[in-house]
Amino acid sequence: MGKSVSPLEAARASYQPRFPPVLDRGAGEIAFEEGRATTAQADTRRIAARFPRTYGRPVQKLIPGAAAADPEPATVGVVLSGGQAPGGHNVIAGLYDGLQVARPASRLLGFLGGPRGILEGRFRELDAEVLRPYRNTGGFDLLGAGRDKIETDDQLAACRATCEKLGLTGLVIIGGDDSNTNAAVLAEYFLSQGVAVCVNGVPKTIDGDLKGEQVEASFGFDTATKVYSELIGNICRDALSAKKYWHFIKLMGRSASHVTLECALQTQPNVALIGEEVREKEWTLEQIVDHVATVVGDRAAAGKHYGVCLIPEGLIEFIPEMRRLIDGLNRAGSVLDKLSAADALVFDSLPATIREQLLQDRDAHGNVQVSRIDTEQLLIHKLAERGKLLVQGHFFGYEGRCAVPSNFDADYTYALGRLAAVLTVSGKTGYMCRFGNLVLPPDRWTASGVPLTSLMRVEQRRGRPTEVIEKALVRLDGAPFRAFAAARGRWAVEDEYRYPGAIQYFGPATVSSTITETLRLERGSVE
Amino acid sequence: MGKSVSPLEAARASYQPRFPPVLDRGAGEIAFEEGRATTAQADTRRIAARFPRTYGRPVQKLIPGAAAADPEPATVGVVLSGGQAPGGHNVIAGLYDGLQVARPASRLLGFLGGPRGILEGRFRELDAEVLRPYRNTGGFDLLGAGRDKIETDDQLAACRATCEKLGLTGLVIIGGDDSNTNAAVLAEYFLSQGVAVCVNGVPKTIDGDLKGEQVEASFGFDTATKVYSELIGNICRDALSAKKYWHFIKLMGRSASHVTLECALQTQPNVALIGEEVREKEWTLEQIVDHVATVVGDRAAAGKHYGVCLIPEGLIEFIPEMRRLIDGLNRAGSVLDKLSAADALVFDSLPATIREQLLQDRDAHGNVQVSRIDTEQLLIHKLAERGKLLVQGHFFGYEGRCAVPSNFDADYTYALGRLAAVLTVSGKTGYMCRFGNLVLPPDRWTASGVPLTSLMRVEQRRGRPTEVIEKALVRLDGAPFRAFAAARGRWAVEDEYRYPGAIQYFGPATVSSTITETLRLERGSVE
Repeated sequence: MGKSVSPLEAARASYQPRFPPVLDRGAGEIAFEEGRATTAQADTRRIAARFPRTYGRPVQKLIPGAAAADPEPATVGVVLSGGQAPGGHNVIAGLYDGLQVARPASRLLGFLGGPRGILEGRFRELDAEVLRPYRNTGGFDLLGAGRDKIETDDQLAACRATCEKLGLTGLVIIGGDDSNTNAAVLAEYFLSQGVAVCVNGVPKTIDGDLKGEQVEASFGFDTATKVYSELIGNICRDALSAKKYWHFIKLMGRSASHVTLECALQTQPNVALIGEEVREKEWTLEQIVDHVATVVGDRAAAGKHYGVCLIPEGLIEFIPEMRRLIDGLNRAGSVLDKLSAADALVFDSLPATIREQLLQDRDAHGNVQVSRIDTEQLLIHKLAERGKLLVQGHFFGYEGRCAVPSNFDADYTYALGRLAAVLTVSGKTGYMCRFGNLVLPPDRWTASGVPLTSLMRVEQRRGRPTEVIEKALVRLDGAPFRAFAAARGRWAVEDEYRYPGAIQYFGPATVSSTITETLRLERGSVE
Repeated sequence: MGKSVSPLEAARASYQPRFPPVLDRGAGEIAFEEGRATTAQADTRRIAARFPRTYGRPVQKLIPGAAAADPEPATVGVVLSGGQAPGGHNVIAGLYDGLQVARPASRLLGFLGGPRGILEGRFRELDAEVLRPYRNTGGFDLLGAGRDKIETDDQLAACRATCEKLGLTGLVIIGGDDSNTNAAVLAEYFLSQGVAVCVNGVPKTIDGDLKGEQVEASFGFDTATKVYSELIGNICRDALSAKKYWHFIKLMGRSASHVTLECALQTQPNVALIGEEVREKEWTLEQIVDHVATVVGDRAAAGKHYGVCLIPEGLIEFIPEMRRLIDGLNRAGSVLDKLSAADALVFDSLPATIREQLLQDRDAHGNVQVSRIDTEQLLIHKLAERGKLLVQGHFFGYEGRCAVPSNFDADYTYALGRLAAVLTVSGKTGYMCRFGNLVLPPDRWTASGVPLTSLMRVEQRRGRPTEVIEKALVRLDGAPFRAFAAARGRWAVEDEYRYPGAIQYFGPATVSSTITETLRLERGSVE
């Protein structure tokens, strides 16, 4: 058989992503319409002081311009930073194509293994031949990825050395909130050092927590939630058919519950826990168990000994008492005597397996590895204390991060790459690539660069106030949560499961060009 | 939102399944060409004695016939027996449509909750209106399913009473090997009692272990393995992108490893364990761990600290020493002192959590619940004893049983239903619905009824020799296993992962009309 390409991959190879026509104009044929000066999300004075050269600039909207003279070829670097998300390869393909349109004979260098590749100067040259088999595919395997940061003075200097050695004129960082914060820092640093390398960011994360007024969506969220919703829908139908099991399904996403919320809107399960609601309402673990147990009990009373419950991976950190316990354990090491009385009480109330996980799995800094804690097993165990229940536990995460990008994500990521090329060769630095009107077909999206500093505020990181791009949490006053909250009482008792099925790349637009409910509800009205 | 239908379900509602044209002929316009007399798979004398009225009859092949006089309407019952499999609803839709074509104004009654519905006379009347929203959908929720048997004299009598009360002329049993064994018993019983109810079976199981010379495939296997292969392929790509984790993936299927083998052929993982090979070669648990550890070590030596390993759910029962231990525990109850010295040695070598599962989880008969044993965790634990390994465990099963049926399964199940209608109204009883040439487009499939008794042999069941339909295991001399065995050495070390992606219901035939590798390799040549 050998290295073989699946029929779907073969068919997707010829897919032509759609994008706004302005991006197809040649070098210099694009002009920028500047909006009003921007400000940070909060802590404006501090952000302005930290980013004197890149703060406060206007949004740069792309518009058709006049033709320019002979363009110089550019040399641009690109890096995939952080966890995988469907469409990363298409950003790179769009970037490459965009560079060829804007500045024929430009070179594109892909750094290997994430930001560490920049620090160590490890890269591969990307050309049409290399990129061909990666167009419209999932995965980050073209370059690999990594979670290293570019923050310290040494790292910034190493980065500069690599860029200068390779003669880069631009660097595109594809990543989440932290990676784009790094991009902002690097852009400011290069300007301060007189290094002529434009640094711009592309919003990536399946978690969906990199968005806001200026950023409608991060790429990958659409595809990943579609994969999870396919599986959850299948399990809902299985539960309804067998009428035998409760399924507890944990979903990837530690910092925010967007994935769980989107999947709930897609599949209409009996219970979906939203971390942000737990934190805002200060629910205790027992109250959460009460909530689930009530639904289980109500359904049992109706003769329904089955159901589906969605749980965000990060739930445990949203529970105030558990957050305090984890902080206490981080301070105390594994020495239980050092815990406060309140923390010790919470600790003792947990099942043995969870207590063990809290004590044994520590990261390099000696901190509790929250992602290793079986939150769904904790809930299952606590529920079992209240009565017999036939339960199946599931965790979906790795299944969705490298899926073949949906048409939405294939279009969005390719367009992001094209836009990154335009910003970079136009001398823009410190911007995030941004499209507006994502609910409309791609030819009606608006393209612009948004100053990365306008997405920032000050947050506590490792105990210190730090200038960072804000992580977008689920807003309880937002349209997606309100739609969920309005319906969940009915979903709890009735069987109103919805079965989205597998991602369709072909067929009628009703099945092959769908967007997330989150995007539809948040951006239903057009700019 | 309310009870809402997903875009895919809405689009699939209008799908017209394809089937051999002979099935579209009206009442009496189909004739039967009889083949040679059949024999059982083994133990022919005993099977013949047990089934005097239904043994030895010829295969009945459908051919065009002359038109008949006014047909009487029929009243037919249908039941979904055993675990869910994609396409069950389409069998029922095909059966309904087939009855209307063959005998207009016929009635179709669906028994609720599996065979128990027959015993208790619980059913719902199925008509075009009721069936409309279920066409081409996954799940068994139209009727529900159940695992009850129809075996004892009381059960047979209850079945007779229900059929007579409802005035049934036919009963179609949709199920796996056990359920079709029950169908054979019931057909024989009704003939012996002079009850004029035709009983015929439809081969269903995602496990793929109901097949043989006369049955090319059971329905559901195609769709379920496509769902699992989608997820495994995504995980392979994630492993290759992150280069960080080994993923151990357990797949549903206790009695046979067809699912694991098919998924291995689709995704080309680094390791796939096949239970039948373990049993035939009498591998010990330590030898299996050696095998996996060697691949892990070879890859690590090549700088690859990641990989994917597939494990069939039933692996533990294929390991001779574990099978003996489980039998020993079943005899000993939870009294460890009663174990033989050899069994005690094996028991003591197991991790604590597995020992606990072996002791605690017992079924109604006091037997070890093998399906509750975390086989993948057992392997992960044994590997961890040999060196540090970052591992993620997965179990895929419930995700695939109720998926929207692939075009192959949608066609196959609908055709099976149409065929069941023809056999039933033609007075045939004790047959399994069978299509030949499944590798070809549906209009070239051959349709026939195969005597259920010809699929039978004698096996030990609950310690007693019993006449049953043979469970088809993976054959080490079969084409699928040989293809796997020829390639696995390369897959172990090279990264030759294949990414099948999501099931496509639309688009070019290369992506929307695929069959399993198992079927292609087993039936590549045409009748």
